[in-house]
Amino acid sequence: MVNITIADVAAKAGVSLATVSRVLNSRDGSIKISEKTKQKVLQSAQELGYQINPFAAALRSKRSGVIGAIIRDIHDPFLSLLVREVQKAAHDKGMEMLMGHADYDAHTAERQLHFMINHWFDGLVLIGNLSTHSLLERSKQSGPPIVSITGDSSLPIPQVRTDDAKGVHLALDHLIELGHHSIGFLGNLEHGGVRTRLRAFKDYLQHCGFEPDESHILDARDRFTAFERSKALFECRKAPSALFCASDQYALSAIRAAWYLNKRIPDDLSIIGFDDIEEAADSFPPLTTVKQPARELAITAIDLLTGFIDGTLDTIAQSESVVEPQLIIRQTTATRV
Amino acid sequence: MVNITIADVAAKAGVSLATVSRVLNSRDGSIKISEKTKQKVLQSAQELGYQINPFAAALRSKRSGVIGAIIRDIHDPFLSLLVREVQKAAHDKGMEMLMGHADYDAHTAERQLHFMINHWFDGLVLIGNLSTHSLLERSKQSGPPIVSITGDSSLPIPQVRTDDAKGVHLALDHLIELGHHSIGFLGNLEHGGVRTRLRAFKDYLQHCGFEPDESHILDARDRFTAFERSKALFECRKAPSALFCASDQYALSAIRAAWYLNKRIPDDLSIIGFDDIEEAADSFPPLTTVKQPARELAITAIDLLTGFIDGTLDTIAQSESVVEPQLIIRQTTATRV
Repeated sequence: MVNITIADVAAKAGVSLATVSRVLNSRDGSIKISEKTKQKVLQSAQELGYQINPFAAALRSKRSGVIGAIIRDIHDPFLSLLVREVQKAAHDKGMEMLMGHADYDAHTAERQLHFMINHWFDGLVLIGNLSTHSLLERSKQSGPPIVSITGDSSLPIPQVRTDDAKGVHLALDHLIELGHHSIGFLGNLEHGGVRTRLRAFKDYLQHCGFEPDESHILDARDRFTAFERSKALFECRKAPSALFCASDQYALSAIRAAWYLNKRIPDDLSIIGFDDIEEAADSFPPLTTVKQPARELAITAIDLLTGFIDGTLDTIAQSESVVEPQLIIRQTTATRV
Repeated sequence: MVNITIADVAAKAGVSLATVSRVLNSRDGSIKISEKTKQKVLQSAQELGYQINPFAAALRSKRSGVIGAIIRDIHDPFLSLLVREVQKAAHDKGMEMLMGHADYDAHTAERQLHFMINHWFDGLVLIGNLSTHSLLERSKQSGPPIVSITGDSSLPIPQVRTDDAKGVHLALDHLIELGHHSIGFLGNLEHGGVRTRLRAFKDYLQHCGFEPDESHILDARDRFTAFERSKALFECRKAPSALFCASDQYALSAIRAAWYLNKRIPDDLSIIGFDDIEEAADSFPPLTTVKQPARELAITAIDLLTGFIDGTLDTIAQSESVVEPQLIIRQTTATRV
């Protein structure tokens, strides 16, 4: 096979060697090259059969240019949104990302983590709660830097998370302003983050002078159960006038349960979610929710990780970064009649 | 740190060395050890701080024990279901899986593929349509074996896919038996698989003596557009009595559009999907659909891949494996009134 060089690509595309080099070898988002030029170079390279090596820069610097991510569940709509943002943030720093899907299995997560730690990954991101304490403790001495996003707050590594209590306060302030004082809670209490939201929920209701009703607090391990349990709650005589859901996915199950019972939302019942997944804006009616800023969580984590990799940040000094949630008012909450 | 051996773990757990070795080092699903014994060994190992190395066997055999998967979109509910099944099938063969998320970007897919080809991955699986022809052509000479699942049928590698035409026939036979002869089509025609389904749809309708109405064929690039376009179709005077959707996700958008217009499903309108994603059984009403057997696709692909890795199968001889779809009748289809 003839050895095609970037000089051939430059000649064919009618641009300078430097431009070809920038398009083919650099993924630094700060270098501005017009999309038209970029496409011309890439097309010329492809037509000539030039072997693009985007990791040339990484190899020169003795780094792989690849970070690893381990995600609890790619089916979780918020975590998969977060994965997409983490990958975008990594691309903006000129790094590629490969990931492991733990699928709720601690042994799988440990194997993937073990493998990434012992190979050529420059840094790792853990996304969602993973039970990998023992391996993380051992990896502190050696191995690449690791950052956790929305993980277990007791992990011995730097954390990036949303201010859960603040998010619950935003939701409750909104519902209380609308005249609701009998408010239910729906969430999967297996997750540490949801337990934190429940504590904040109870504390803040009491702080506002309302007594949380234990029979209105629903624990559901999956969205089928969330549907069933919210249906049962809406049917009971002392049903609350509003429901706070610790995830949008569960809020969508609760909306389906209301539909099923011919209850109108928001006229008969207000429902508020948490996360702001893609489906939230798209549900019928569109869901009022507390937005976890996925992009900000991702950028914060990747900024930390690249700082640790470059040695410009010290892992000890960065134990926890908290980003602010935001209330997104759509059409599932209204004044209590 | 004291060096903990498996003898220490065996003594603590009160089992034989061989049992500890099997639990800790082997992930061969064919070796039966009781869950109780397994947990006892794992707990003893953890309490003693034994460093589990699940890849010891792989290292001995000069293999990494890891396969790579590149997926078009982890947000696609069918592809993410497929990823889970591929990982399970890999685990059953004692292999771990790491993946790249192409996120519809051919350059990202090429970089991830390039990286996996040039590193220690034993084999690769491409999931969904990825535009990586040029790199695949070059990797045929060297590099690990690669299998594609539900990908572009023109790829120069062994393929595993569902019999799309058969799936369309199952759906149309069902609708025609229920008395429907004005049937619409909704899908994202950017995808090759959907274009195949549309061809089969038109051909089979004609074969059955009906003329497909071009104005009833809807192309939508995302589920928001799918909602809008199906709403517009349901509102028009000559609306079809049934809609065939080339994916369950779009069928769910169409159901929401029907709800929005106060049309009753299946009384006023029959809707049928394709894929059988988790949400299909859970929708309101539960969705009638054509099941793509994700588990069978995954097992077929991993069986091929491990055969290629072991050298017991020849990649040339295995150009295409087709699995049979299945009609799942739920509650969104009924007799035309």
